[in-house]
Amino acid sequence: MFEIAELGRKVSEASFAAEEPGLHTALLQAQFALRDAKVPVVVIVAGVEGAGKGAVVNCFHKWLDTRGVETRPLWDETDEERERPAFWRFWRVLPPQGVIAILFGSWYTHPIADRAERRIDRDAFERRMRRIAELERLLTDDGVLIVKLWFHLKKKQQRKQLKRDVKAGVASPHIETHVRHYKRYWAAAEQAIRLTDDGIAPWHIIEAKNARYRDLAAGRTLLAAMEKRLDDLDERVAPPPMAAPPMTPPSSETPTILDTVDLNRRLSSKRYEKRLERHQNELRRLAWEAHAQGRNTVMVFEGWDAAGKGGAIRRLTAGIDARLFRVISVGAPTDEEQAHHYLWRFWRHIPRSGYMTLYDRSWYGRVLVERVERLATVEQWARAYQEINDFEEQLAEHGVILMKFWLHISPDVQLERFHSRQRRPWKQHKLTPDDWRNRERWEAYRAAVHDMVARTSTVHAPWHLIGANDKQAARIDIIETVCDRLSEALD
Amino acid sequence: MFEIAELGRKVSEASFAAEEPGLHTALLQAQFALRDAKVPVVVIVAGVEGAGKGAVVNCFHKWLDTRGVETRPLWDETDEERERPAFWRFWRVLPPQGVIAILFGSWYTHPIADRAERRIDRDAFERRMRRIAELERLLTDDGVLIVKLWFHLKKKQQRKQLKRDVKAGVASPHIETHVRHYKRYWAAAEQAIRLTDDGIAPWHIIEAKNARYRDLAAGRTLLAAMEKRLDDLDERVAPPPMAAPPMTPPSSETPTILDTVDLNRRLSSKRYEKRLERHQNELRRLAWEAHAQGRNTVMVFEGWDAAGKGGAIRRLTAGIDARLFRVISVGAPTDEEQAHHYLWRFWRHIPRSGYMTLYDRSWYGRVLVERVERLATVEQWARAYQEINDFEEQLAEHGVILMKFWLHISPDVQLERFHSRQRRPWKQHKLTPDDWRNRERWEAYRAAVHDMVARTSTVHAPWHLIGANDKQAARIDIIETVCDRLSEALD
Repeated sequence: MFEIAELGRKVSEASFAAEEPGLHTALLQAQFALRDAKVPVVVIVAGVEGAGKGAVVNCFHKWLDTRGVETRPLWDETDEERERPAFWRFWRVLPPQGVIAILFGSWYTHPIADRAERRIDRDAFERRMRRIAELERLLTDDGVLIVKLWFHLKKKQQRKQLKRDVKAGVASPHIETHVRHYKRYWAAAEQAIRLTDDGIAPWHIIEAKNARYRDLAAGRTLLAAMEKRLDDLDERVAPPPMAAPPMTPPSSETPTILDTVDLNRRLSSKRYEKRLERHQNELRRLAWEAHAQGRNTVMVFEGWDAAGKGGAIRRLTAGIDARLFRVISVGAPTDEEQAHHYLWRFWRHIPRSGYMTLYDRSWYGRVLVERVERLATVEQWARAYQEINDFEEQLAEHGVILMKFWLHISPDVQLERFHSRQRRPWKQHKLTPDDWRNRERWEAYRAAVHDMVARTSTVHAPWHLIGANDKQAARIDIIETVCDRLSEALD
Repeated sequence: MFEIAELGRKVSEASFAAEEPGLHTALLQAQFALRDAKVPVVVIVAGVEGAGKGAVVNCFHKWLDTRGVETRPLWDETDEERERPAFWRFWRVLPPQGVIAILFGSWYTHPIADRAERRIDRDAFERRMRRIAELERLLTDDGVLIVKLWFHLKKKQQRKQLKRDVKAGVASPHIETHVRHYKRYWAAAEQAIRLTDDGIAPWHIIEAKNARYRDLAAGRTLLAAMEKRLDDLDERVAPPPMAAPPMTPPSSETPTILDTVDLNRRLSSKRYEKRLERHQNELRRLAWEAHAQGRNTVMVFEGWDAAGKGGAIRRLTAGIDARLFRVISVGAPTDEEQAHHYLWRFWRHIPRSGYMTLYDRSWYGRVLVERVERLATVEQWARAYQEINDFEEQLAEHGVILMKFWLHISPDVQLERFHSRQRRPWKQHKLTPDDWRNRERWEAYRAAVHDMVARTSTVHAPWHLIGANDKQAARIDIIETVCDRLSEALD
């Protein structure tokens, strides 16, 4: 694979000078056109040590308008990053629409080094490559242009270059290992490229021996990728026809998973108070225990309007030291959020080790309100199930304790609560025209909830369906479930 | 001071039930009105251990619409926080316009604990209180409403409460020290309150023995503060008349600091190439050395349009390993940035230990373009000098190596460069109608630059005025200065 980058290609000073202005102008034009088209671009600058990746980044800074470029070194991890699922640090640096992010180091850096230095075995390595492929697929589906550049040097050339660096006192850490394990790095890199080199985010291998050749080739490759995307936009290439998504037809006659929820359970106030207090005390202990063990916890609350999410969350958090949790109420996105993949705004708030995040509404909005109200295209919400499963699997792999609740009520109870909200001044703000509109789409939501549970209730992230016609019973169910899940998960 | 919160006040269950609905409704109304008026609110929940601060936060969650509330536990620091100036973590959690941030723990927590446990002396403590007063002043000036609540318990009551917590297994860490050092905490807290209790952000001391009294008092206090602000907004209270800011009159006849810059220096290409390479190599070593020593570096580049900032930055970064720096090109703010104090977007990018941030344009926009174009009011830009000095002093105190460059050219050289930009396709994007407009205001900018240097060139953050009529000479000046400053600062 790397042989194609060992041909000894060169560019003379004169040819470089002749070609550069045109390349420079064309790159700028492409950048501005992609900015106007709101396309985010991710440029991955990877390759062997000593290949001059930094010099290439500097060329890009020269050729592009730096006001639309964010260069992100992804090298050593901070503890805030280590304390969260591995991809959190990458989500942090994804570019918004219209911006070019140059990643110096990337999601490939650690897996390749870990494999080359035998910290992980082949299976673990391939699993990490699968995760990367998922991420690149997700971004590409969302319109991100990914350009992956690999800069190659032969072993002898690398050794020569690195000797020079060491002599100049500018060698970066870990250089020794790279030289000693050239072959292992070579093999791991080849494997990484092979496993992630697909039509949506292909790799470009560039010979790095001659600096002028290297820089021009990098510039040309980036330009070609940007121009290709612009052509595609012009032609408005239709996405490949998709199989109809397996949808539950919205009809009150089709039974759905929600019909299995017992809505008749009741709890007396006396028993409620007693059990609530007991569970809150238990939860307080468990939350501190999770903190001590460094476990992250994520809870998701979804449900019908007026099902009692807010009240249930408050009874829950009354049992958690306020230092240990955050509640994220999901409303309209900010423009920074709007300019990213829809999962970005949720990744932002993933807790670090020992802390809890409670989402009052969540990423499931994509397959609920956005599906029903047609705010997302069919393609978008249909692929969201898998994106969500992948996301939650990443949380689970990191050891995050993940709980998802759907609060279910019957339509007549909802109506009653709407009316009660209208009567009480301190509850009126909770009732909006949206609520009445959503109510009219009850059947469509019912179908969407059914599909959601069918497709995203997994071993590591099961849905808990809570009968909430009686608020007190629902609150106890929830806090009990949380305590049980925490007890199970903690040592 | 705390005697007023030892009176044994109580609220009966019945009075609580009678008052709560009205308080709840009024708080919601005030919240919505402040949201519409785009006022950010910071609620500081502080006080002795065991006073039930978490329960108060929970009440606020119940009484307010949580979609507009962000609760932020500020307790233990992460390394990303420790590696930056102390206030970075607070800037991180400041609310945007229209949002209420409840800070559980705050900028008071660590100084009080450090003083009570004798980790810092009285002088250091007072210095930290001064920093806090500066921050609160800055936020208040910017329209933030700050509500500071201190919950008090007598020594005996605290001991009783904490015993109960320990028994229930829910005691938080460090409780022992609090009990043992009650008096010292008491003294440090009193001192903190005394030093930061002013008209713009007064403290409210609340008796915490009786939970119902405590919660109602907290709610009422918050409500009163919010309603007061709403009244002020209605009456459009004029700010106190300010003394005319000491401005340099914009006139070509007044000599300014810029007239001291030598614009006639020239450098031959041969000498330029040689010196550039030498300095880049030196810089490469120094950047790694700074990394090894964990020193953060911040560089600010300002200058006339077409003065050559971008080119100088590129020559500089060519001498720094791409893993170690980020360039922030300051353009139009995002809406999240727009909804905060103008310094917020710069705090965001302050580097952590061992890294460098280069700002291509910076916070000085406030006293340059925003002053000249009247984008900021006179009050806003006039107080910005001090805000900036305070900000930079905080960087310096943390050990950040801070460098500021103004690239100076003459009007005729600028005109020449504008014309040359028009001629070259890859430079045309650099010339905008703004540039021509700014050029017409040359005198006004000249005066603004003079004032800026006069008021913000300090021992820890001097301005370097660079003659840039000859680009090559300017680049060498800059890289030499950077190398010198780094060498000086490193051990």
